[in-house]
Amino acid sequence: MLKFFSVGEAHSLKVESILFKEKSDYQEVLVFESSTYGKVLVLDGIVQLTEKDECAYQEMIAHLPLCSIPSPKTVLVVGGGDGGVLREISRHSSVEHIDICEIDKMVIDVSKKFFPELAVGFEDPRVDLHVGDAIEFLRHAPKGKYDAIIVDSSDPVGPAQELVEKPFFETLAQALRPGGVLCNMAESMWLHTHLIEDMISICRETFKGPVHYAWASVPTYPSGVIGFLLCSTEGPPVDFLNPINPIEKLDGAYLHKRELRFYNSEMHRAAFALPSFLKREVRLL
Amino acid sequence: MLKFFSVGEAHSLKVESILFKEKSDYQEVLVFESSTYGKVLVLDGIVQLTEKDECAYQEMIAHLPLCSIPSPKTVLVVGGGDGGVLREISRHSSVEHIDICEIDKMVIDVSKKFFPELAVGFEDPRVDLHVGDAIEFLRHAPKGKYDAIIVDSSDPVGPAQELVEKPFFETLAQALRPGGVLCNMAESMWLHTHLIEDMISICRETFKGPVHYAWASVPTYPSGVIGFLLCSTEGPPVDFLNPINPIEKLDGAYLHKRELRFYNSEMHRAAFALPSFLKREVRLL
Repeated sequence: MLKFFSVGEAHSLKVESILFKEKSDYQEVLVFESSTYGKVLVLDGIVQLTEKDECAYQEMIAHLPLCSIPSPKTVLVVGGGDGGVLREISRHSSVEHIDICEIDKMVIDVSKKFFPELAVGFEDPRVDLHVGDAIEFLRHAPKGKYDAIIVDSSDPVGPAQELVEKPFFETLAQALRPGGVLCNMAESMWLHTHLIEDMISICRETFKGPVHYAWASVPTYPSGVIGFLLCSTEGPPVDFLNPINPIEKLDGAYLHKRELRFYNSEMHRAAFALPSFLKREVRLL
Repeated sequence: MLKFFSVGEAHSLKVESILFKEKSDYQEVLVFESSTYGKVLVLDGIVQLTEKDECAYQEMIAHLPLCSIPSPKTVLVVGGGDGGVLREISRHSSVEHIDICEIDKMVIDVSKKFFPELAVGFEDPRVDLHVGDAIEFLRHAPKGKYDAIIVDSSDPVGPAQELVEKPFFETLAQALRPGGVLCNMAESMWLHTHLIEDMISICRETFKGPVHYAWASVPTYPSGVIGFLLCSTEGPPVDFLNPINPIEKLDGAYLHKRELRFYNSEMHRAAFALPSFLKREVRLL
């Protein structure tokens, strides 16, 4: 059993075999074969994905923003070195260019070796890979370049610490076109209400518009859920709750490489329904 | 740490102190104070509830059926010895009579001692407690007596084994009035798709109408979710997806004893949105 700790609790997965364990310049990278969740990627002791439930996270974080705007063309992924988000963006035939900025090359290499179903995302010719610091990358990015930015970062400790601070969100907002959308990984509604509240208030100031919180069930994340913050820059208004670009109408040739396992338009709308305690605690009422 | 095992995984909760541990006639009953989830009730090694997240389960299993019919009057709870479901039913001022049939008196006593916020449900004068076997109880129940039946059973091992078999569902259907509704605890969509498929096919045969699956996030249940089967007997059609009896319109005096923590009408509708894998695997497409 490998044990993953949160405050006051732990989740253990039965290990069949350890496949990879090395320290990169940024973190400890571990891959193991579990007995019931398939292969598992762990960074600094935190489960990033398992083959069994990665579909929920990758599909939601990609399609929540991309299905909310008509014909997304230029997309940036921050983090996402496993390639899963790229795989999902690839389903959108309107997309012409995908930049991805991942700081840790070892994550990419490990994914290509052990997670071909995710790393397949890198094979899309529309993908332009940048290995480096996202803040540095964004400093040189043309203003208003992107229709959508997806922040698929690890938890805000270690290399991802700056990614929940105001300057970073300001940089993201500048890189988006008017009416462009941001989807940012946003922790667990059961465990991290204070962090969520902070992120929401930063995003409200930065984006000067409504901020939406959505969530999905991911069994191997702490408390079994993960959240997403969605906001858009000033410009054509975006109705996140009613996807204007429904996945069911996208070009079938792109969609059927691998069937969608989790996301559909009903799940999209449902993701924005929030428990009463969360609405009260983070003032989303 | 106390460790709760599922196949190939385990969830551990940090223990502050053990408050109660005894064998009843039916199962081992354990109560402990955890460090981050409040007090925890465990039956035969399976977490039944924690103070932190019980709101999700109790509110959803009670209000999904009761908000789907106009003015429910007579309700039966099978299991539910902790009283939490009763507490939630009590919010409905239309209800005149609540039968509850719990087999294990020790669960009731333990709840009254350690979980007053749940056991408060027993104080409602509309509640009629029957300690005994639900199948035996239903044999003597008048046909067509109930507007709604809520099956809040433990997992289908030990005393609850018969509660997922066809004869039991037939008995439930007979005890419901025409157009009456059943809400039955129905496991995890991530872990138990075969069991869910079996339950759905039994309910389709028995209730001769559509069967709906809904789910909620409950961090301390295996894979972080729990499901509910909803079906109705022949009679006035029931639209589970659009609650005719919305909780927001109920008598405030009943509602404000304790604010709803999880359930609201948006969460009700959202609960029926299902991941694509589940729709395919249990033929709900």
